[in-house]
Amino acid sequence: MSEDNFIEPRLLKGFRDTLPSRMITRMRMIATVEAVLQKYGFLPLETPVLEYADILLGKLGDEGEKLLYRFKDHGDREVAMRYDLTVPLARVIAQYPELPKPFKRYQVSPVWRADNTQRGRYREFYQFDLDIVGSDTILSDAEILVLKQDILLSLGITDFIIRVNDRSFLNDLSRQIQLDDAQQKVFYAGLDKWDKIGQDAVVDCWQNGDLSKSHIDALLVALERAKTVTNPLADTFAQAKLLGLQDQYVVFDPTIVRGLDYYSGIVFETNLTHAPEFGSVFSGGRYDGLVGRFSKQSYPAVGTSIGVDRLLSALEQLQLIPEVQTTTTVFMTLFSEELTLPVLQMAKNLRDQSINVEVSYDAGQLGKQVKTAAAKGIPYVVILGPDEMAAGQVTIRELATGQEQRLDQSGLSGFFLDRQ
Amino acid sequence: MSEDNFIEPRLLKGFRDTLPSRMITRMRMIATVEAVLQKYGFLPLETPVLEYADILLGKLGDEGEKLLYRFKDHGDREVAMRYDLTVPLARVIAQYPELPKPFKRYQVSPVWRADNTQRGRYREFYQFDLDIVGSDTILSDAEILVLKQDILLSLGITDFIIRVNDRSFLNDLSRQIQLDDAQQKVFYAGLDKWDKIGQDAVVDCWQNGDLSKSHIDALLVALERAKTVTNPLADTFAQAKLLGLQDQYVVFDPTIVRGLDYYSGIVFETNLTHAPEFGSVFSGGRYDGLVGRFSKQSYPAVGTSIGVDRLLSALEQLQLIPEVQTTTTVFMTLFSEELTLPVLQMAKNLRDQSINVEVSYDAGQLGKQVKTAAAKGIPYVVILGPDEMAAGQVTIRELATGQEQRLDQSGLSGFFLDRQ
Repeated sequence: MSEDNFIEPRLLKGFRDTLPSRMITRMRMIATVEAVLQKYGFLPLETPVLEYADILLGKLGDEGEKLLYRFKDHGDREVAMRYDLTVPLARVIAQYPELPKPFKRYQVSPVWRADNTQRGRYREFYQFDLDIVGSDTILSDAEILVLKQDILLSLGITDFIIRVNDRSFLNDLSRQIQLDDAQQKVFYAGLDKWDKIGQDAVVDCWQNGDLSKSHIDALLVALERAKTVTNPLADTFAQAKLLGLQDQYVVFDPTIVRGLDYYSGIVFETNLTHAPEFGSVFSGGRYDGLVGRFSKQSYPAVGTSIGVDRLLSALEQLQLIPEVQTTTTVFMTLFSEELTLPVLQMAKNLRDQSINVEVSYDAGQLGKQVKTAAAKGIPYVVILGPDEMAAGQVTIRELATGQEQRLDQSGLSGFFLDRQ
Repeated sequence: MSEDNFIEPRLLKGFRDTLPSRMITRMRMIATVEAVLQKYGFLPLETPVLEYADILLGKLGDEGEKLLYRFKDHGDREVAMRYDLTVPLARVIAQYPELPKPFKRYQVSPVWRADNTQRGRYREFYQFDLDIVGSDTILSDAEILVLKQDILLSLGITDFIIRVNDRSFLNDLSRQIQLDDAQQKVFYAGLDKWDKIGQDAVVDCWQNGDLSKSHIDALLVALERAKTVTNPLADTFAQAKLLGLQDQYVVFDPTIVRGLDYYSGIVFETNLTHAPEFGSVFSGGRYDGLVGRFSKQSYPAVGTSIGVDRLLSALEQLQLIPEVQTTTTVFMTLFSEELTLPVLQMAKNLRDQSINVEVSYDAGQLGKQVKTAAAKGIPYVVILGPDEMAAGQVTIRELATGQEQRLDQSGLSGFFLDRQ
């Protein structure tokens, strides 16, 4: 290929390749979460990456619209790339009314947002969503809570706190003290920042937003009371406990708001106690109105979303997931061309017993072959030279220790089955 | 939500939702294929959906370019959606020279082509690619062949034929009979249609394309000779056989060309004997020049691609994959509010033993609950009414037969563990 045609290999800003090591870890994490979900009767769903833009646009608001990857396709249709997994789910529910309810689905898929990469954000990232559509029961809310616990525990995370609030509680409170719509927005916007800026700064926000002193006093009293005296979510917590939710993992927190307009009931965030810098790794809530955007029949819904990459990074930092470079157990060297036949047969025998084996494609230069195996992080190298052949044996080298041992060829698969 | 805001739920032409039933089947098929690949030392990789357009454009030619979903992003960059998985792999190889070679990776991902949907084609579809980069050995070619066999056998397909040719053989032949570049193109274009239109029509194409009678005679003799006397791929087949390739699954076929410019050695297609209408479910070849487009260092490469949806449809038609509606084994009914506690505890106990359980969110109306379970295709319903409670028992109904039995509560998990 001439120099003229050379194209600089590069990625778009905010996009990344997932190389094998991280892929293996991510796939294992996802498989673990899927197994938990299946225990609760959730099923997988997948929707297209491209949708009509109007399908995705409705709920986003101006801020969201700016983040949408949107263009005209070859048929001059306004199309856009998936921004989240919730709106496509609402579309699916409306489009296939025959799907039995409650519909419990999960979806693990990338989404795209043309966000500012300077804040360390990516423009393509995986979400893992789980939702229950078609039930407005306390039990369905409770199940989501216990699922969050079970998923984190299944990943080895034991230090976390699920903070839960109820939009109905906030709405009722606003009504009781007679906030108008604008004042309610000020109330929510301040509350949403409580965690970051603290009570005093929130009160400042409320004052600047024209909430009266009596409003603010009433809010503070009601929030304190909900925290300490009467948990508005007591029934939900009680049912979640029957399903296995442990006390130490959940707390009612009246300052949780969640930005999105469409939440209508329970809302929650989940923080890792020993890795708070990752923020909420697992957020969501109840959104009873969303399907109604696409259907004359409305369906209540509740769900939660895992930031896959964020949670994976947290797991790595907390050393709860081993670094894995490969799924291959054995590298079979090829001592010389003449020994191709027995080496390939040996590889076949091992594979027939579900042992993962890479065979050297090149004969000779044994040192180079061993280096290749080491670079790939494959734990064992098998050597079949003329000496070993004559003795009906093989040499096994464990690369981490450099230890070598000779084994009868008949014992080879047993050796690795014990170690896989 | 007011009528004004109602958005018609709909999909773009050529795009589809994958509902749970098909998702479960597809995920199982993919997991089966992945297990085979891991046995041969292949590792997973994932690349972004969006790339700089110039990265993807190079190899496509005019026809391909028309099919590319391409637009300007928010930073006015020319970007495009992934068209296949081979070009991104070549980019990755050039971009991360530290990746140990041979680099053996697989990727299962959707790709996008703005194709004509009237031909029954989809614009978003899954590909499952496996490639070996960094080896030009016969052994690496042979491994790809045996992998194709092992993958199909692992899926229960036993009637298939892998048809293999070598571009070097065709190139050498063209040189021997002194075809110029234009004539060689005519030769390949005709050959490519052999399967569909037959020898006579191919000869017509060659004549119309200005190949002389002596050219054509020489080609026919050489092709016939390669088929019956001297297989140019004899060494490759021999090594593949050592790795386990069975004679009946592979044939040298000098009419296989594969359209793409970048193939440089072995090329292959795979047809299902009892479902020929699906065409080649599994195609590919050697492309030693492609990485050189992005790197001063060139790497030989060989690989193959499975049309995931096509193969899945074939498996369904051949009844080699069971229709699955759910992964849930048990639907726990909720007889009445008062019995919530024992029902949820029972569900928790079953889940603790990895039995997949959906619990009714609503109490009462038992008939409706059973109908829900049936609509979801869940095989067993568990009923815990006051009678059962009093006796320390449960009723299990198998929905396929309508058969009911009572069991001691202590025996419940054992019953399902035997049946999961």
